[in-house]
Amino acid sequence: MHILVVGAAGMIGGKLLDRIAGQLDVLGEPIEALTIVDVIEPIPPAALSDIANCGQVDLVVPGAAETLIAARPDVIFHLAAVVSGEAESDFDKGYRVNMDGTRALFEAIRKEGQKAPYVPRLVFASSVAVFGAPFPERIGDEFFTTPLTSYGTQKAIAELLLADYSRRGIFDGIGIRLPTICIRPGAPNKAASSFFSNILREPLVGKEAILPVDVNVRHWFASPRSAVGFFVHAARLDLSLLGTRRNLMMPGLCAMVGEQLAALERVAGARATALIRRQPDPVVQKIVSGWPSDFDTERARALGFAAETSFDDIIRIHIEDELDGMFGG
Amino acid sequence: MHILVVGAAGMIGGKLLDRIAGQLDVLGEPIEALTIVDVIEPIPPAALSDIANCGQVDLVVPGAAETLIAARPDVIFHLAAVVSGEAESDFDKGYRVNMDGTRALFEAIRKEGQKAPYVPRLVFASSVAVFGAPFPERIGDEFFTTPLTSYGTQKAIAELLLADYSRRGIFDGIGIRLPTICIRPGAPNKAASSFFSNILREPLVGKEAILPVDVNVRHWFASPRSAVGFFVHAARLDLSLLGTRRNLMMPGLCAMVGEQLAALERVAGARATALIRRQPDPVVQKIVSGWPSDFDTERARALGFAAETSFDDIIRIHIEDELDGMFGG
Repeated sequence: MHILVVGAAGMIGGKLLDRIAGQLDVLGEPIEALTIVDVIEPIPPAALSDIANCGQVDLVVPGAAETLIAARPDVIFHLAAVVSGEAESDFDKGYRVNMDGTRALFEAIRKEGQKAPYVPRLVFASSVAVFGAPFPERIGDEFFTTPLTSYGTQKAIAELLLADYSRRGIFDGIGIRLPTICIRPGAPNKAASSFFSNILREPLVGKEAILPVDVNVRHWFASPRSAVGFFVHAARLDLSLLGTRRNLMMPGLCAMVGEQLAALERVAGARATALIRRQPDPVVQKIVSGWPSDFDTERARALGFAAETSFDDIIRIHIEDELDGMFGG
Repeated sequence: MHILVVGAAGMIGGKLLDRIAGQLDVLGEPIEALTIVDVIEPIPPAALSDIANCGQVDLVVPGAAETLIAARPDVIFHLAAVVSGEAESDFDKGYRVNMDGTRALFEAIRKEGQKAPYVPRLVFASSVAVFGAPFPERIGDEFFTTPLTSYGTQKAIAELLLADYSRRGIFDGIGIRLPTICIRPGAPNKAASSFFSNILREPLVGKEAILPVDVNVRHWFASPRSAVGFFVHAARLDLSLLGTRRNLMMPGLCAMVGEQLAALERVAGARATALIRRQPDPVVQKIVSGWPSDFDTERARALGFAAETSFDDIIRIHIEDELDGMFGG
């Protein structure tokens, strides 16, 4: 089995590779070849260095996607994207990477299939950004996509292409809309959503964190481990169960910031929560208020996708996966 | 005021030009320049020949859209499209014209606006094909777009682009999803929806027509006159009323084939309906059953869009506009 991961240098890509490294038949059959590419050359886990073919690839460069697809990978994970903020500030780059790059990949598969039958599995990382306010209290799977960012627009377009190419039998595709991943490992970054992870990750290692919003702000979360689980499940699932509606919201946990803090205190004690400094930021509060916070994911759950049901679990997973089971709060 | 009509050689484009010819200030201000283009050179109504600049233009030819937009039209009607059947049978052509052509037009406007401020009104002809079965009994304006054709996919992508370009202030756009236009003038064609018009148009001039489906088939209709009215209204409407949700379903009449026939008999007598020959076609019946038939268009109505409320009116409009007020049944 040959696996291609496009966008392998990112956080989810790296964790997906770690998961494959830990269990070479995680996708059903043993993986014999692995191609991992990104705009910077990704580094494979040591256990995969024998089978991994790594490359620095920009999908919109003519011929780049064709070269990747010429090796006829059986499963393709498409995680590559310019993130929300950059797609908004750099119009051309966002459309070039998120729309044209995705289409170039899809077209390369179509062209390869015209030479000899070839219908790979394709798993696409989509986003809640396909939705735009105002929202109903819970967003159902039939709610329309009216993105309020260029990033969300590009993801919604990629979803439409994915559904049409799948309907035509060009590939067997699924688009999974990821919740906000929490607790994101690594250093705090400038994303408006960064604090959702910071307020848990930093106190767990004895560091201060800033909370810029009210404790009653609601959001939709899943752990990095669940996110990898979504991709693995999507790669193995019988997609005929999806019919023609190939894009769906992944399960997650709807929680208020106050619930995050209560869970932190239960797991790590009051000295952890004491490290959180409230410093209201109206700009962040406003951005976050415009995001969807609760979803009806009955469809994904019925198909076997699963995520955490308590923030205690999300914190424990972080302690297990990132802190070797220990925390220094 | 300078008007650009892209796709002006089609039925709706022609009727829109007739409407403008009949009232030069129909869009609010007198029209001083009119550019009309299509893949075949359109012929303007005689009354407009002094101000009309006609051209054979393919938007995806490099520079073609830029040349059109360099004249900085105030209002742009974008009606050009490869139709549903052809977009399905010719994958490349459908995407090239309906997706890349539309994007080329939008990009030309963006590039022109980078030279000096320029934010034209853009009215885009979208379609009920953005929706895909299964449907609720009535499709509301928040129902999701899961097209089951490449044509519908391309229209849905164009809608997303239109909303994003409008949100960014590149143009002031509106996408109007047209009902099935009935009674279409001209000869019967091979479209699966053709019979909806044939069974009225042909008997009105004493000719036979074939009815390939059950009389209880429901569909969603508006007259050509209403369609032109939608475009004119969309060109004049204060689009800030739409907020960021720039694409909407136009009003129409939900009617069964049986109601069409009853209206024909009321308007033209039993000798008209006697000309209809029932010849069930399971293929057509199946295609038509997969189409949406009823919509909640409260939003469009509140914005002032209006259509017929009885099939008697639809037939009378055809008699007035196409048969000089007389019918030969």
